[in-house]
Amino acid sequence: MDQVVCLRCMICGREYDPENVPYTCPSCGPEGILDVIYDYSLIARRFTKERLLSNRDLSIWRYLELLPLEPKKLRLPLHVGWTPLYQAEELGRDVGCPHLLVKDDGRNPTASFKDRASSIGVAKAIELGHQAITCASTGNAASSLSGVSASVGLRSFIFVPHNAPKAKVAQLLMYGAKVFLVQGTYDQAFDLCLEASREFGWYSRNTAFNPYLSEGKKTGALEICEQLGWRAPDTVFVSVGDGCIIGGLWKGFHDLLQLGFIDHMPRLVGVQAEGCQPIKHAFETCQAVKTVQPETMADSIAVGHPRDALKALRALRDSDGFMVAVSDQQILDAMGLLARKTGIFGEPAGVTGFAGLLKALSQERVDPSERVVVVVTGNGLKDVDSALRASPEPTEIEPSLEAVARELRGRS
Amino acid sequence: MDQVVCLRCMICGREYDPENVPYTCPSCGPEGILDVIYDYSLIARRFTKERLLSNRDLSIWRYLELLPLEPKKLRLPLHVGWTPLYQAEELGRDVGCPHLLVKDDGRNPTASFKDRASSIGVAKAIELGHQAITCASTGNAASSLSGVSASVGLRSFIFVPHNAPKAKVAQLLMYGAKVFLVQGTYDQAFDLCLEASREFGWYSRNTAFNPYLSEGKKTGALEICEQLGWRAPDTVFVSVGDGCIIGGLWKGFHDLLQLGFIDHMPRLVGVQAEGCQPIKHAFETCQAVKTVQPETMADSIAVGHPRDALKALRALRDSDGFMVAVSDQQILDAMGLLARKTGIFGEPAGVTGFAGLLKALSQERVDPSERVVVVVTGNGLKDVDSALRASPEPTEIEPSLEAVARELRGRS
Repeated sequence: MDQVVCLRCMICGREYDPENVPYTCPSCGPEGILDVIYDYSLIARRFTKERLLSNRDLSIWRYLELLPLEPKKLRLPLHVGWTPLYQAEELGRDVGCPHLLVKDDGRNPTASFKDRASSIGVAKAIELGHQAITCASTGNAASSLSGVSASVGLRSFIFVPHNAPKAKVAQLLMYGAKVFLVQGTYDQAFDLCLEASREFGWYSRNTAFNPYLSEGKKTGALEICEQLGWRAPDTVFVSVGDGCIIGGLWKGFHDLLQLGFIDHMPRLVGVQAEGCQPIKHAFETCQAVKTVQPETMADSIAVGHPRDALKALRALRDSDGFMVAVSDQQILDAMGLLARKTGIFGEPAGVTGFAGLLKALSQERVDPSERVVVVVTGNGLKDVDSALRASPEPTEIEPSLEAVARELRGRS
Repeated sequence: MDQVVCLRCMICGREYDPENVPYTCPSCGPEGILDVIYDYSLIARRFTKERLLSNRDLSIWRYLELLPLEPKKLRLPLHVGWTPLYQAEELGRDVGCPHLLVKDDGRNPTASFKDRASSIGVAKAIELGHQAITCASTGNAASSLSGVSASVGLRSFIFVPHNAPKAKVAQLLMYGAKVFLVQGTYDQAFDLCLEASREFGWYSRNTAFNPYLSEGKKTGALEICEQLGWRAPDTVFVSVGDGCIIGGLWKGFHDLLQLGFIDHMPRLVGVQAEGCQPIKHAFETCQAVKTVQPETMADSIAVGHPRDALKALRALRDSDGFMVAVSDQQILDAMGLLARKTGIFGEPAGVTGFAGLLKALSQERVDPSERVVVVVTGNGLKDVDSALRASPEPTEIEPSLEAVARELRGRS
């Protein structure tokens, strides 16, 4: 892993040898999340546009030289990444953003962006010789981890609060995860998971706590640029919960900028729900992140105590970006508009980035000349109840042509 | 469309100019479904392995020369096809079929194999100048049609029986389809859809009735062979409802055999639920297909009156294949085993092909030396209730390490 120089604490800046450091900074504790620092001059010799052009592996593993893994070790079988980046011209014209592109990450194996991070977590667990992996989560991170683990025969132990949605628990169980329904809050489940990880020697795939996960998420940015012929977009909109995705996207663009593959850093715009906007508040007030009680139906971003805030805030500041907050109704409206105009069906948190774009357009914070990428982070089939709330009522008719004709007349 | 010689009736063999024939044989009526007949010597000049090698369009449109469309017309934006074909070695060894491969078609845009057919239907509707398209269905065909239509701004009118599952209706509504809940059976909805199609000039995407849909489904077979380096598998297992998928797969293998791309026709094995096996019965007794009352929770193959039986039976006979029937419990068991061992989460009908393989192995109808492909036709997120039925209960614990340890001791 000579491409990695060190792991650097996001708080105190101390640097550590990856071989000899636990998950977070020994000096700053669990809040001292670590950033992976690369040797770009070494990477530049191994990783070129020409080699990529002849690389037929259309998955995140095409970027192996830019990932914090031993290149010789196992690649995982599930096909993660290289999700479609659609030109959404008609929708773009309708909303006043004609150069609109949509990256559909609901097309990943377990139907969310999280598969990018889970793949790195699982690959790392195998590299380090672990027999089992664990995380605390109520949603996509957990189902993603259990699915990717299943594909390589790694045991997974998942901690979820006992009131977790049954549907998401079902997906975990199907993949064969050992699921602990913790009689307590999500925060208690998280703490218990860290404790169990230490006690039983399971590898920890906990957002932010594990420094490598955002490195998996950066592959989304690498793909966007390669799919655009190495012309970086002007602006990227994405939903924000823990902050790991926006932080990861920044890292991907940063890497490409260091390597000279692109010529500018896109402006990164994070979108939170109005009922849960701790990162927006911290960013705009320049204060520390305050824990809030989340109130939004977009469950994947209902994160009151965001664990990856430092990387998210760096992404926003370095890219000259900003934060937007949208209401649950705006999320539901965006969900319907996106599906009707593009055929892309996202879950509420999955389309929150698009809802944020609509709001930013209405506030004239985006210029129509900009090339904008919206990242859809999860598939709508993950949350059918919200889809029903966002939909009109269907029409019930008797089985006759006359009834169809009557209904059509009423419609026009 | 000079690559198409004619459309030939599957009953009487009469041949028709595609420009001058309605959907089915004028002489045999709606039962006289039509087969697309190609000019393979013409196609062989345009469609070569070498050209495919340099074609970077990894979707069904890479096979445009083999599809019944005007090549110059619009290609659709949604990325359909080129779904992963996984080597499932560990699972294969466990079940006594070491050369096992799994094609995961739940990775399509609307999460089922049906997107292959809908894409052809929608492309054809646009080619013929229609403003709207229609179908009757309770499940994946409908959501697929509405999603693909949404991506190109084509209006879709969907007829479903009034007791259709709410979740599937939600997906339709999200994509902006006009949904008619017909107060009657599925058969009444089907007949009303055909009537409305004639009356209002909507293009009909009804399975079998429209001769082009199985041509879309054949792309699954084309991909399997190309992904295997043009070495056709020995045997393919797939679930059977209307019979359109197995008929389409046969057509794809047949095309490649005619073009000399592969050297043998794989044996095609169709799998139905024990509570709904009209095609198995017709195949084994050599009698006409008898309509049955479906009794299975695998809703996508709960088809009592299969519309594409003629093409399915041809596929079985010509390929020296056979039919298997499995119980609902066997389907649920197969669903869990596949997810746990490979990370592929299929809906019940989606994994019925795999359940059939397990049964055929137990009956020694498959030799361990065979290279077997199982096609997973739909994503498990389409039917979370069945996943819950197939899953063990999760473990509820108090938030303490001691509780975790106690639970783990009990487990081992």
